[in-house]
Formats: sequence, C-alpha cells, structure tokens
Amino acid sequence: MNKISIIMGSQSDLEIVKEAIDLLKEFKAGFEVKVLSAHRTPEELREYVESAPKKGIRVFIAAAGGAAALAGVIASQTILPVIGIPIETKSLKGLDSLLSTVQMPAGIPVACMSIGKPGAKNAAIFALEILGITDKNIQAKLNKYKRQLKAKVLRAKIKL
Amino acid sequence: MNKISIIMGSQSDLEIVKEAIDLLKEFKAGFEVKVLSAHRTPEELREYVESAPKKGIRVFIAAAGGAAALAGVIASQTILPVIGIPIETKSLKGLDSLLSTVQMPAGIPVACMSIGKPGAKNAAIFALEILGITDKNIQAKLNKYKRQLKAKVLRAKIKL
Amino acid sequence: MNKISIIMGSQSDLEIVKEAIDLLKEFKAGFEVKVLSAHRTPEELREYVESAPKKGIRVFIAAAGGAAALAGVIASQTILPVIGIPIETKSLKGLDSLLSTVQMPAGIPVACMSIGKPGAKNAAIFALEILGITDKNIQAKLNKYKRQLKAKVLRAKIKL
Amino acid sequence: MNKISIIMGSQSDLEIVKEAIDLLKEFKAGFEVKVLSAHRTPEELREYVESAPKKGIRVFIAAAGGAAALAGVIASQTILPVIGIPIETKSLKGLDSLLSTVQMPAGIPVACMSIGKPGAKNAAIFALEILGITDKNIQAKLNKYKRQLKAKVLRAKIKL
Amino acid sequence: MNKISIIMGSQSDLEIVKEAIDLLKEFKAGFEVKVLSAHRTPEELREYVESAPKKGIRVFIAAAGGAAALAGVIASQTILPVIGIPIETKSLKGLDSLLSTVQMPAGIPVACMSIGKPGAKNAAIFALEILGITDKNIQAKLNKYKRQLKAKVLRAKIKL
Amino acid sequence: MNKISIIMGSQSDLEIVKEAIDLLKEFKAGFEVKVLSAHRTPEELREYVESAPKKGIRVFIAAAGGAAALAGVIASQTILPVIGIPIETKSLKGLDSLLSTVQMPAGIPVACMSIGKPGAKNAAIFALEILGITDKNIQAKLNKYKRQLKAKVLRAKIKL
Amino acid sequence: MNKISIIMGSQSDLEIVKEAIDLLKEFKAGFEVKVLSAHRTPEELREYVESAPKKGIRVFIAAAGGAAALAGVIASQTILPVIGIPIETKSLKGLDSLLSTVQMPAGIPVACMSIGKPGAKNAAIFALEILGITDKNIQAKLNKYKRQLKAKVLRAKIKL
Amino acid sequence: MNKISIIMGSQSDLEIVKEAIDLLKEFKAGFEVKVLSAHRTPEELREYVESAPKKGIRVFIAAAGGAAALAGVIASQTILPVIGIPIETKSLKGLDSLLSTVQMPAGIPVACMSIGKPGAKNAAIFALEILGITDKNIQAKLNKYKRQLKAKVLRAKIKL
Repeated sequence: MNKISIIMGSQSDLEIVKEAIDLLKEFKAGFEVKVLSAHRTPEELREYVESAPKKGIRVFIAAAGGAAALAGVIASQTILPVIGIPIETKSLKGLDSLLSTVQMPAGIPVACMSIGKPGAKNAAIFALEILGITDKNIQAKLNKYKRQLKAKVLRAKIKL
Repeated sequence: MNKISIIMGSQSDLEIVKEAIDLLKEFKAGFEVKVLSAHRTPEELREYVESAPKKGIRVFIAAAGGAAALAGVIASQTILPVIGIPIETKSLKGLDSLLSTVQMPAGIPVACMSIGKPGAKNAAIFALEILGITDKNIQAKLNKYKRQLKAKVLRAKIKL
Repeated sequence: MNKISIIMGSQSDLEIVKEAIDLLKEFKAGFEVKVLSAHRTPEELREYVESAPKKGIRVFIAAAGGAAALAGVIASQTILPVIGIPIETKSLKGLDSLLSTVQMPAGIPVACMSIGKPGAKNAAIFALEILGITDKNIQAKLNKYKRQLKAKVLRAKIKL
Repeated sequence: MNKISIIMGSQSDLEIVKEAIDLLKEFKAGFEVKVLSAHRTPEELREYVESAPKKGIRVFIAAAGGAAALAGVIASQTILPVIGIPIETKSLKGLDSLLSTVQMPAGIPVACMSIGKPGAKNAAIFALEILGITDKNIQAKLNKYKRQLKAKVLRAKIKL
Repeated sequence: MNKISIIMGSQSDLEIVKEAIDLLKEFKAGFEVKVLSAHRTPEELREYVESAPKKGIRVFIAAAGGAAALAGVIASQTILPVIGIPIETKSLKGLDSLLSTVQMPAGIPVACMSIGKPGAKNAAIFALEILGITDKNIQAKLNKYKRQLKAKVLRAKIKL
Repeated sequence: MNKISIIMGSQSDLEIVKEAIDLLKEFKAGFEVKVLSAHRTPEELREYVESAPKKGIRVFIAAAGGAAALAGVIASQTILPVIGIPIETKSLKGLDSLLSTVQMPAGIPVACMSIGKPGAKNAAIFALEILGITDKNIQAKLNKYKRQLKAKVLRAKIKL
Repeated sequence: MNKISIIMGSQSDLEIVKEAIDLLKEFKAGFEVKVLSAHRTPEELREYVESAPKKGIRVFIAAAGGAAALAGVIASQTILPVIGIPIETKSLKGLDSLLSTVQMPAGIPVACMSIGKPGAKNAAIFALEILGITDKNIQAKLNKYKRQLKAKVLRAKIKL
Repeated sequence: MNKISIIMGSQSDLEIVKEAIDLLKEFKAGFEVKVLSAHRTPEELREYVESAPKKGIRVFIAAAGGAAALAGVIASQTILPVIGIPIETKSLKGLDSLLSTVQMPAGIPVACMSIGKPGAKNAAIFALEILGITDKNIQAKLNKYKRQLKAKVLRAKIKL
C-alpha cells in the first residue's frame, strides 16, 4: 500500500499537524507520523528519508516553524514529492516559516501549503490528490470530500 | 501518456514559465501549454480544466501574478494536483502573488513554489516527481538530474 | 428596486459582514446575503452572479480571507461594480486577504475596502454611494449619516 | 452628461494616471483631470470637491503616493463614490501608498485599486461600471471591452 | 504661555494619548486636547488649526490610526511643527498608521513618533524639547526627566 | 544665531542629505554639516553633541541607513530636538532604516521623517518650523515656501 | 575565568533574557548580568563596556527591543564579539527589533539571534560555542547538550 | 593555525562573499572557501563539516539566499560557531534569506549578519573577533581596523 509520511520538527507542532492526521484517518489512507528535526536530529532524519521508499512511502509531508529547513532538507534527499506546512510562530506569525519553506532554490522543489491548520489539512488532501492519480478509490473519496465541502457552504443559513 | 498542463494567466508570463517548459522538454515529458486567465477567460478556463483528464492531463501547473487567483480557481474545479507559480510583480515584487497563491483555505490545496524563475523550474520538477511515483523512467531521469545538480556545485572553482 | 448583493466565502465571515448588513438595514436598502465560495462552490457562484442582474442586483459586495479570490472571480463574470472586503486571517492578519483582493490585473477592477469590520461597514456605505448617484433618497440618508459621524466626534468629551 | 473627475496629487503622477485617461477617452466618457494635493492645496481641493456635483461630476478618481491622503480627504467632503489609485513610491514601492489609501476608518469609504498602472486603468473601468448601472450605452461598451480582454488572451500563441 | 495642542482622530485613541497628556501634566505644561478627525470633521479641524496660533498653540500633536491622514492634514494648514503618533490598529498592528503618518511628501513635514504608547509619551517630550529651546524652565525639567530615566535603569536589580 | 546641525553617518549619505542642505541655504538659515557615525566614531559624536549647544546649535538632523542608530544615540545625549532621516538601503529599501529610526523607546524621542530625499527636505523644513516659533523672519519664509508649493501644483498643466 | 556579559536595555526584558541566564547557569559558565540602555544610560554603558575586558568578559550578549541600538552601540566600543537578541515588541512583534539589530553597517558586526526566547537561549549557546573553541570542558558540555536536544526529539511519542 | 571556513551555497554568491574573502586576506587570516549546498550536496556538506575540526577550522561562515538552510544545517552538525550571511534575492530582496537564516529554533544558534555585502564583510570581522579572543595579533589588527574605520569617517569632507 502506498503510504504518506508526516514529519514534524517538534512535538509541539502536533496541534497543527493533527489536522492532516485526522483527514488521512477519515480517508483511511496509509500513513505514518514521525517527530524528526532538520536541526536537532539531522542523521536520524536522513536515515529515515533514505529508508522510506522501501516502507512504501510515496509522499512526504513536513511541518516546521521559524527557519523552517525541514521540508527542504527532506527534498534534498529524495525524488519523492515533499509537501511543506509552515507552522505559525510566536513573533512573526509564520511569515518566517512560510518564506523558509516556499522560497526553495531551482532544482529542489517543496510544495508549500498555507500557514497553520488550513495548510496542514491541505497537505493531507494534496498528498491524496497525488496518490489519487493512480487510485480510483482515492479519487472517489476526494470527489465525495469536494461535494461535502460544497454542501456545507450551501447549507449555511444567514439570519438577518 | 500522462501529461502535465501548464497554464499561464497572461502571455507576458511566458518569460518565467519558459523555465518549466524547457525542463519538461529536457525530460521529454508529455505536456501542453495554455494561456487562460481566471479573471479574463473564466469560462474557457473551466471548460479546459473539465476536459483535461480525458486528454491525459494528470497535473496542473498554473502561473499568475498579483491577485493570483488562477491556481486556486483551477483547484476549485479538479481533484488533480495543482501547482502554483507566483509571478513577480512590478511594485510588490511577487509578495502579492505569493500570498494569493499559497494562502488557500482548508479543503482546496495549491502546491505553491517559489516566486519567479526558480519556482517555474521547480513546478516542472515537482510535477515530474508526482508522475515519477509510478514511472521508473521518470525516476531515473530525476535521479540523474539530482546528480547533475550536485555535480555542478562540486565542479565550482573559486579563485582566491 | 435596486439591490445590493452581499456574498461571503464562509459562514464564519458573518461576524465581520454583519457590519455591512446592519448598515444596509439602517438605511432600509434593498439587499440580499449569500454564502458562496470561489473555491468550494464555483458553479453556484457563477450561476448566482449571472442571474443577479435580473433580480435587481446593481452592486456586489464580496468578503473573503486568505487567498481571497471571491471578489475577483465575481468581477470576472459581471460588469456590475464589485466591492471587496478583506477578512482578517489568523496568521497574517489580513495582509494576505488585502493583497489578494486589491492587486487585481488591469481590466477586471475590484474596489477594495479596509481589512475587517471597518471595511465591511465601508463596503455598505460605498455601495449606497454608488446607488445614491441616481437616488435622492439615498443621498439624503448619506448626508445625514455623514452629519451623525461628525456629531459623534464633536460630542466626544475628554476628561483631563 | 455624467462626468468622472480624475485628481492627481502631483503632475509627476501623470505617467500612471494616463492609463485611466486613455481608457476614458477610448470609452468617450465625460471626464476632467485636475492636479490638486491634499497636502499642498487643501483649500483649492476642498473648493473643487464642493463645486464638482454642479459640474456633473458623479465619481472621483484620486491618485497619490506615499502618505497618500488625497482619496480619503476627498471622501471626507463628498457622498459621491471616491476611487483611489496608490502610486508606486521610490523606497517602499507603493506599500505605503496602498495602506494609506485602503485602510480608511469606518464611515468614510475609499475604493482602492491595485498599485500603479493596472490600478489606474481599473479605476477608470470601475468608474464606468458605476455610471454604467444606469447607462445602457456604457454597459454595451463594458461588455465589448470584456470580450476584447478575453479575445486577447485566447489569441495568445505560445511557440514551444 | 506657549501651548501644545493634542488632537486625536477618535475618542477611542484616548487610552494611548493619555501617555502624552499625563506627561504634559507632570511637566505642568500648557496644553489643550481635542477630538477632531481629518475624515469626519474636516471643516472643524481646519477652523481649529487656523485659530490655534491666536490661542497660544505653538506645537501640534496628532494621533490617528489606519489611513492616518490627521497629522498630514494639520501640517498642510500650518507652519507650526506637527508631531504624529501612529495608533496601533487591529489587523495590521499600526504598520498602516506608521506609513500613513511618516511617508509625507517633500514640503509638508510630519515628525513621526513610534507606534502606540511609547510614541504618545515621546510626542509630549518632543513637544517640550521644542518649547524648551527658548524656555530654561522646561530645559531644567527635561534634564531632570532624563536623569530620572537613567536612575530608573540603574536602580534595576536582577536576581539570579 | 540659532543653528541647525546636520549629521550624516557616512559620506555616501550626502546625495540624500543635500536636499536638506540646499533648502537651508535657500532659507539662509544657520547650519553646519558633520559626518559622524554612531557605530564608527562614537566618541567624536558624543563630544560633538555635548559641545553643540555652546556653538548655537538648537536642533539636530541625523541621517543614517540600515540599523540606523545615529538619531537615537544623539537623542540619548541631548535635550535638544533630534530629527531623523531614514536613508534607503540596497536590500530592504529603507524599511530597516525607518524602523530603526522611528521605533524609539518611551523617554527618548526622535522625530522621524519619510525615507530618502523627501525626508531630507522635510527634516530641514521641520527644523525651520521649530526655529520659526520664535523667529518671525523664518515664519515669513515658511509661509512663502508654502505658497510656492501650492503655486507649483496649481500651475500644473495636463495635456489631454 | 572567561566570562560572558549579558546586558539588557530594560528590566522588563528579563522575562526573555532569563532563557539565556538559565542556560549559562546550567552550564556553570562565568557570566554577569547588567541593565544598561543605549538610550537612557549611554555613559554608564560605555564605561561598563570599556572596563569589561579587565573583568574577564570575553563575549557580550545584548537584548533590546524596538529601535534596538544596544548591541550595535556596544559593538562600536569593543573588538569582543557582540551577540544581539531582538526583543518582541507590542505592535510590530519584533520585526523592528530584528532589523535594528541585524542590519549593521560594514565594519561593526553584531551576531543576531532569533526574536524572543529562542534567540535568548541561542545567544547563550552561541557565546559558549565561542568560548568552547579553546575550552574542552565547554566543548564536552555542548556535545552533551546537543545529544540531549536530539534525545528529546527522538523520545517524542505521537498518539494516533 | 586556527582557520575560518567560508561556505557558499552557489558559485553565484561569490560576488557577495568576496567581501569576506578580501577582508580575511587583508588580515592574513587562515581560511578556506567551499561551494557546498544544503539542498544540492547535503552529503558532501556533512562530510566537510565533520572533517573540518581536524583541518583546524574553528569558525564557519555560510552564505545562502532564499530558503537559506545552509547555515542552520551546518549548525546542526557542529558545536563550532556558525555565522550566516543572508544573500539578497531577486524578488524578496533578501527578506526571505534573512528570516531563513536568523529565525533558528532554540538550541541550534546561527549568528546572522546583515543582508548582502555589508553582512559578508561583517561575517569575516566577527569570525576574527571570535579568534581574536585568544590571539593578541588578531586583536591588534582589529583595533587597527577600527581606527581606520574611524579615520575614514573623520576624513570625510563635505563641500557646501
């Protein structure tokens, strides 16, 4: 089974990353979650990224804040797609995380999502869209999810 | 053959988007290029996005600047992965394009690349990484490309 | 009767948009309110915008946050004036919403108001100013409103 | 005949404002152009704004850069719609002009356009959209203009 | 007696402006406080500024937020020094107020202070420094104030 | 004779500061110009600031870029008014200089002007406004200057 | 014994600076803490910096917010390494402090850390890395600290 | 002999990094220069950083632009001091490089210099200040350099 790997730079990112985890559970997707830091556990991160393909990992999701090197460092070590979630920071509110994640140099792409919870949810959906290209089951679920999003908007009632 | 669709909001974006086109040519990837605008040709854009899967399109790349709605509007109409390239603008230098592309609401992901030419090249590589998941030929080319990037860095000579 | 259409991208925007609704009520203006999203209900949005003129709609007000495509997408489908309200966002505080709303490309204008509640109130006043050009009744109410604003400032008492 | 008034804070803004003038000429719209500054000619500005309705002015367009008070000061003195064009500045590239124009307090709206030339063109179109509400001739021209925008995009040829 | 005039654009600015008022009281300086808005009471503001010199006003302090035109509009109508206090705003945290206050065009200076409470206190001190040039009594008090600032820093005790 | 002291942090700032110098010459004001740096000549700066009052200096103008400490350091050593000119920088375009100059802590005011040439000219005018409080000759020249500014705007001719 | 000097511009910075103090205690490093301000106690600051080498000070850590001149002013008076901690500010969230600390002119370096608490902790570690170059005891402790950081990450447990 | 290692992420950074190289030559300091990228040559970078201490390296200087992970990745692999030079980028002018370099998480410090050439020169001086702590020869040269900086300022002649 094709799997998605979610890596967060710090356990404190879990509150945000939970949005991605919950969505992948809802989709009954194959995934695993790791806490690994580009700055504090560079070797373990590298070993994990190298070993990931053999375990069925097909897409990486990386969440980090501040000078957020995590997604880029993973991307430097794989040709699998890497999706980045910029975590909001205390002072600069994630502008630092966003620019550190998105402004990758030519040759080493990271697919940057929006800052914080919406970005975490979108990282999961985007990973599923990637796997869905060759998986009709995921396609069907994504279409259903899109209809639900629409239905929720259309159900909204505004009392005047 | 799986194909990549590159859409730019204006013909003037070609100078940037050329980076993606050239890379896809170099990889002999299947792709097509369109000029379609979320703001000026919304119907034609919708028709194109709807018809794309039948033509073998598996990934969209969308380049736009300013209030860059293009990638998001495509993403609203498909469950295929959409990659966004923020085009640099005259006054705000692409900060507007970046935020308009990356800050998507939960449910409708866009994979944002860096601003301008590096982002255009990376959009192509990222699209290939997606298709490469199930295509050993692309994998081999991506690995070779990564080795070339490395070799170019290691060849650098600094005269002191 | 000429009517104003207020569209918000998400029901959660109501807290802000209420400022516009309350002002239009105070002015006894004709208006209707919709929850429609450029990203989640693109077809319903298009159908609504197309049908609006027949229902007497003369001005659109669109409120959205983040990669706020709503006002621009409406503007792409009508020659009626479109007023945009950038909704404050959690991380970037509405800077993203502002740039996504205001930085429209040449040819497709959106009239951007200030971020959040002041912008919502101003969207309503601006829509009334537009309709007021040919409606002496609205003109009289706008003049009265302006006198009230002034009176409120002049009534202020500062205890030293 | 309903007229549009274009006011620029400095003669040096003409290079940008020309975009609006040319479009109004193309539409054969009634308009007049003034150089008046909120900071250097406050009295003449006030007198002009007060006298404008009698001359058939129905919409104001105001272009200014830096601490761009012009549009707001006009809006403080009229209940006609005021459209603001933020002029790009040397150092801050129009971010200052944008925020000074768009962040109006509740009660005194200014309809802010994008920075620089696209904003100037859009100011003219937006003014025409306002006048077009009650003018079928302008509506027809706006619809034609929109079709031309579309046609220009669809004509684009990308040589690969 | 030479007097300082403090003008705030809205009564809600008093919480910040109080810092200036309290300091002027502490210095037993001559001053008066007004609520007058560039956008809501332009005529009353103009009349007040014109009449101020006769009442002994020698310096203006103006506090406003958002598209903060107040200080600049006062400066357009006087050759007395005008000091601006940018008030913090809800979304953009006073960056809008700062740029609207400080980025004045050549010819019409405003002396911009820091955002919020420190800026309000400094506006009062700066006004006193101006009056102090020809007033030995104020000079003595400013020197004493400066010594107190220093003493407060030097008294600080850090428990390790 | 009351004099104005202009201090620039680097000789390369002269291109900007010249705007202030030329205006003071035009006004036949008493002034002197120094190159002294808060970071490279801290002692000479301190000695100069201490000795300035005896030489008739009544106002300081300080121009610096980047981490622009100059105006604040002067203000720390005097109770005379200090006016700051933020010099545009290569990368951040003077946003760094602006924030370093304007965001002074409570107790030590700096009167910040706009970035670059307009700020330099305004620093000179503001210094003259300060001295003009007690000098009818300067007042007359400032009034004349203001009339000239106005006349220049009113002379502008726009060819359509 | 080689010592580190920690200087904060205001006692209110202690909440942040405590992160540095606690780490230096944990390392049993030699250090002293001072409250001294570039703007309020310039002379005492200068005397302290001049006398520091004799007391064994080998590195300075300076924490300040807003127009944060402290680290730069120290650096102007010593050839010892100066490390800057930008303190978060109320309105601009430390962007002002960051730019005022980091954008030093050529010739007078300040080693800028991240904004707020992470920056305070890192200032202490960086000072220890400097002293550790010639101190095997500190090297051993830094290696141990690095292993602890890693271990903490690897211990993290994510419950799904 | 203690040596400084200068690493740049791309040969194109040499134009900036040359400022550091020239200064180290002028000081006759021991140093070596490498082109190694965190994203394109992660393994070679790691091997180099690990082997550096044996070659006498005592301080690292790392220059990179955009999502500038280089300095942080080096810091993750050493307890030697790492100095970062943010390289100016085409669109965001180095704001991205600055935030990616400076906003390091607690535990892994990077000493960030100013953007571009001044930062490159300062990185070299700061590295020398570090080595100078235990090297009287370097101290003497740094003192001389500081006197030269001062002399250059004091030599400046302003023709009025």
